[in-house]
Parts: sequence; C-alpha cells; structure tokens
Amino acid sequence: MGEVVAGASMSLDGFVAGPGESGFDLLFGWTGNGTEEVPTAQPGRALRMSPASAKVVRAQLESTGALLVGRRLFDLTSGWGGTHPFGVPVVVVTHEPPAGWEDSPFTFVTEGIEVAVARAKELADGRDVGVNAGEMARQCLTAGLLDALRIDLVPVLLGGGVPFFGEFGLGPVRLGEPDIVPGESVTHLRYRVVGTNSRSFACVSSFAGV
Amino acid sequence: MGEVVAGASMSLDGFVAGPGESGFDLLFGWTGNGTEEVPTAQPGRALRMSPASAKVVRAQLESTGALLVGRRLFDLTSGWGGTHPFGVPVVVVTHEPPAGWEDSPFTFVTEGIEVAVARAKELADGRDVGVNAGEMARQCLTAGLLDALRIDLVPVLLGGGVPFFGEFGLGPVRLGEPDIVPGESVTHLRYRVVGTNSRSFACVSSFAGV
Repeated sequence: MGEVVAGASMSLDGFVAGPGESGFDLLFGWTGNGTEEVPTAQPGRALRMSPASAKVVRAQLESTGALLVGRRLFDLTSGWGGTHPFGVPVVVVTHEPPAGWEDSPFTFVTEGIEVAVARAKELADGRDVGVNAGEMARQCLTAGLLDALRIDLVPVLLGGGVPFFGEFGLGPVRLGEPDIVPGESVTHLRYRVVGTNSRSFACVSSFAGV
Repeated sequence: MGEVVAGASMSLDGFVAGPGESGFDLLFGWTGNGTEEVPTAQPGRALRMSPASAKVVRAQLESTGALLVGRRLFDLTSGWGGTHPFGVPVVVVTHEPPAGWEDSPFTFVTEGIEVAVARAKELADGRDVGVNAGEMARQCLTAGLLDALRIDLVPVLLGGGVPFFGEFGLGPVRLGEPDIVPGESVTHLRYRVVGTNSRSFACVSSFAGV
C-alpha cells in the first residue's frame, strides 16, 4: 500500500519561500546545478542535477502515483500549464472547482482533507501520494494522515517568508531516524512520522473497533 | 585563528524551544540516549550519547575556547550554577552586569555584539568561540561576524515556540555544503557561512583598503 508523503525544498531556517515569494532560485538551485538529466512529463523541460540528487528524484517519480495539492499552489502555477511535471493525477483541495478543467489530470475535491486523501490514494493505485505544499502537509499531519516527510534541505537562511510547517496546535510530532542523501547544494532527508496525537487516537479507535 | 560558531539543538521545523518553553526533553534527548560517556566541567554531570554523537561533541569541546551567550540564557540557567558544562570562559552580552559575579569565569559586556565577539576571541586564545542561542547567533550573523553554524537537527516537529533564527532583514545568507554526521535521534550538521550582505561589504571594504 502506498504512503502519504509530504515534501518540500526548505531552507535551513524552515522556509519554503522567502519574503515576498522570493528565494526560489536558491531553494530549487539543486534541480538545475548538475550534469544528470531527469526528464519530466512537461515536454522540453528536463531537470539537471547531481547524480546523487537524480537518484533520489527518479525514485520519487517512480514511487509517486498521485499528488495532493492546495488550491493556492494550483493557482500559483496556473495548473502547471495543464500537465504536472510528475505526469500523475493531481487532487486539488478547494472550496470551489474552477471551470474548464473537467477533462484533465486534475480532480477537485471540496469535501476536505480526508476525502481528498482517500481520492488521491485511489488514483495512486498502490503507489505513494505526494503532498504539496505546507498548508496541505499541515492538514494531513493534524488529521493523522501523514506517513512520511521528504525534506530537501537547502544550505541557505532566508530569514523570513513562508514556513513549511508553521504553527500547529498538535503538540510535538515525533519522527523516525532520517534517510540522508547528500546532494550538491541540498541534503535529501526522509523521515517517517511515528507519532502524532491524532494518529495515536486513530490507533486506539481501531483497536476498540470504532 | 579560531572561528565564531553558533550552535543549537533544533527541531526539523526550526525551533530551539517548543511552545511555553516545552520540548527540551525531545530536543536534548540525544545527549542522554547512548552508552558513550562525555564528561562535562560540572562535577557529577556526564552526558551519555551514541558513539557518533560523542565524537562530534568531544571535538566541539576540544575546539571551543570561549562562549558568547545572551543575558536571557545566562538568567534562564542561573549562570549554569557558576560553571558552564564546557569549562571555558563565557562572555555574556547584557545591558547591566549582575552583582556578585566579579570573580567568575563570566565576563559581562555592555558595549554590544562586536565588542563581545572581540572579547570572546581574546579569551578563546586561538580556539573557536561558541555562540548561544538564537538571538546572539542572529546578532553575529547580521554583523557579519559568524563563520559557521552547527545544527543538531532533531527528528521532531514542535509546531511552535522559539525559532533558532527567526526573522532577520538581511536577505538570503548562503551556507556551504554541510558536514553531516548521523547520530541517534539527531543529525549533526555543520555549515560554513559563505555570504551575508555585511560580510560581502566587509570584503569589499578590505579590498578598498578601508
């Protein structure tokens, strides 16, 4: 069964965008600073990175069966011009589906995060569901639906902007020991989510047959 | 010549204390979860950690000749009961020196961060100056006085509290590739500070003979 994995390129000080939506050149520099080509589903748009990073990204492309994103990211990217670089179905959490996207790889879910995750899991067909960005990661985390975190940790301090996680009223969330892959201008970290309050509660509930 | 190195145990979401000064058991769990004993300068208080972490901490103890801390940390720890675990001179940045600490390893500096760093460097006598915690690290960083960052990255999300870096109006600060040492419940990262606005300016100034 696939897992629900939230991911981001993050500065050492925890930001996924700098002040005023700046810093993307620094945060994503590692996707263009090497010699190893990684094709995407967008025609003519390949990434070029270090061999170590390429191995990580190829594995991620292979293991990801669907994506779950927020409406903000969908709008910011104009729906990735119709094709997400991963070339997989994308579930967009929104209050109101936009017009004109009926016949597309994009599915719009208005019933909240749990329904969205269930729909993405169906579409992923046994592979992982990738979650972007912070707000969706946070919603999955607080609902006890997040299995793992994949952080591409970039050696820069942005000093402000959009934090990946931000404040959430959940108490500490314990993670497992990370898988660590050093790249160039990035350190790839993958953590298992081992304990949130919601998750513990869910376990108790299923033991109790609720 | 020694370097100025700021360090902290930090959660993956960038906090050095959880909400309401919580989370220290999680942030510093790695200093007591192993079999390898690391003595401190405080009688009867040894740390016990994994062999990998012990190697990192011993190297840090050997290379550190003085510490620079803020008054808040000094007060929070009641001056470490008179002896800092590192057993080295400690420079405390403060507005007003406390009474009764004249004959101690603590030096109180009221003239600001640049004078404090200069004093700590003298006391370190060629070894490194360790900087704690966030506020002092930030002041050194914005003054262009920080050479390196040592982050003990702990696999936990605290969801709020005291950020290590916080917001600073400096623009992006580029770091070098990290030295990475995986421990148990911690990943030791050490980054070189390669570019801040202040530092670049200082370089230009020294080129210009100013």
